[in-house]
Amino acid sequence: MRTFAASALTEPPFPGRLNEHTPVAADLSARWAGDLGLVATPAESSRLARANAADLAGRACPDAAPEHLGLLTDLITWLFAFDDRCDDDGLGADPGRLAPVVARLLDIVDLIGDEAPATLLKSAGPIGVALHDLGRRVRAQTPPALLLRFATELRDYLLALLWEAANRVQHRRPVVSEYVQMRRHTGAVYPSFTLTDAAHHADPDATWLADSRLSKLDLLAADLVCWCNDIFSYDKERRAGSDGHNLAAAVATETGLDETKALTAAANRFNDALEAYLRLEHEVLADGDRQVARFATARRCWIRGTYDWSMRAARYN
Amino acid sequence: MRTFAASALTEPPFPGRLNEHTPVAADLSARWAGDLGLVATPAESSRLARANAADLAGRACPDAAPEHLGLLTDLITWLFAFDDRCDDDGLGADPGRLAPVVARLLDIVDLIGDEAPATLLKSAGPIGVALHDLGRRVRAQTPPALLLRFATELRDYLLALLWEAANRVQHRRPVVSEYVQMRRHTGAVYPSFTLTDAAHHADPDATWLADSRLSKLDLLAADLVCWCNDIFSYDKERRAGSDGHNLAAAVATETGLDETKALTAAANRFNDALEAYLRLEHEVLADGDRQVARFATARRCWIRGTYDWSMRAARYN
Repeated sequence: MRTFAASALTEPPFPGRLNEHTPVAADLSARWAGDLGLVATPAESSRLARANAADLAGRACPDAAPEHLGLLTDLITWLFAFDDRCDDDGLGADPGRLAPVVARLLDIVDLIGDEAPATLLKSAGPIGVALHDLGRRVRAQTPPALLLRFATELRDYLLALLWEAANRVQHRRPVVSEYVQMRRHTGAVYPSFTLTDAAHHADPDATWLADSRLSKLDLLAADLVCWCNDIFSYDKERRAGSDGHNLAAAVATETGLDETKALTAAANRFNDALEAYLRLEHEVLADGDRQVARFATARRCWIRGTYDWSMRAARYN
Repeated sequence: MRTFAASALTEPPFPGRLNEHTPVAADLSARWAGDLGLVATPAESSRLARANAADLAGRACPDAAPEHLGLLTDLITWLFAFDDRCDDDGLGADPGRLAPVVARLLDIVDLIGDEAPATLLKSAGPIGVALHDLGRRVRAQTPPALLLRFATELRDYLLALLWEAANRVQHRRPVVSEYVQMRRHTGAVYPSFTLTDAAHHADPDATWLADSRLSKLDLLAADLVCWCNDIFSYDKERRAGSDGHNLAAAVATETGLDETKALTAAANRFNDALEAYLRLEHEVLADGDRQVARFATARRCWIRGTYDWSMRAARYN
């Protein structure tokens, strides 16, 4: 699938760079996941290592200090571990079992990194304890506005997982517009952006965040990251039995196109969105302040980083 | 059910007051709903009038200027109209039909009140057009930080509706902790609070919003509003065939208690939460600034307003 993706996707015209602290972040994150019980067996641990969260985080914030890189790496590690758990025991396809898990994690999100009652941590298990640890560190390391944004974005992510699970149990395949909207949340790309903003010291004021050009830029960046991921992972997902939660699959569901044509159409969407991103970024940077420039840089790094990480990662082999 | 609620619930010890512009807001909101097609028949229109959105809004912001009261009234009108629509044709119990509707409304939320493409408004129908009109006015009338908060809270509300629909189609009844967490979102109480904050000119800075005492106060206020509503509406819902999405029903699901005992347990939860609210409010007000005091006043008005509106409203007869 790399060959198709490499030839069909426009290479994002941003420098691809990797944070020099990435190897350390990878080691620390593997230990963090082990210590908190996110991985229980050597097989789980080596699958998580192959996912290479630190490589993705290190590309998203190439100049970040180790504590910021570490936090983003651990968030991505957590997301991969939770995703694996949802896949492994059918949790992600069973809304009735997933809903209480999501509700407990939402209880933890509601704490916005403040101390958690022991009963809550106990009932939430390792996934909840690790999420709480992330929240605690986000509170300690980032400005309050970013902490609040991080919490609401995690909430959207968790709620959107229930949409996906409800589809799976009903064998329902979403069409493109619905998929595109929900994928922004199931991909957890927004909370990842926010920790990347923290790492880039990008904290535009509310007036800029509510500016429709900046919010559109954010949305395009989220789509690009998700779609790039979809196109690279399509083949692996198809082999595992596609459930329709992939841009190319949504195109096929909606249009009836065969696989190759649907993949090409998905790649074209990516390329068009990248062009739109570049045009809009130009406009935003012409008017924006230093915080806005950092905000855009964080998203550039994510778009390029996802592309480079996908090209290299063994995750989709 | 009023008799039970009136005797079992502690009356919130805050003054109950009604905005003098309430009758005008009621008329304007009825016209707004009619003009935008939120109600299509005289029966729908009179059901919406009985729900008395303006009375609830007028109690939530007794001193607000007409344009702020009007905006909150129209939001509540919209929520009632969408709720009726979800009930009437089974939309709220069919995740496969609800999901594309929710996705389209999320597309509108993503615009944060900016201009909408005509194709989106067309496909979203009257509910979408009215939501967009609300967003446009929130953008024009409120500070950007509140606009952004409003958008994320609406997003949580819409996503949480899919949780409810997935439960209904599977005949699944949530237990208390899950219900309590999700009810905060399905009740749309947070976006309602935010427009009430706008009406009270309550705009605490991010440091205060991220303060765990203030966020806990917000959460307790949300629970009190939802639970009061649940206890008053229990009887009506039971007659319509309870689906378990009510605090008393969740208590019964979890404990096996009979109806009267479950209702009493639910009322006791309300009373305990009210006590906790009062203690915490005292603490927060001692440390808070003027914005924090207004934030607390907005929540007091909601707690008291919901109680008074429920006592009077014909909605649950």
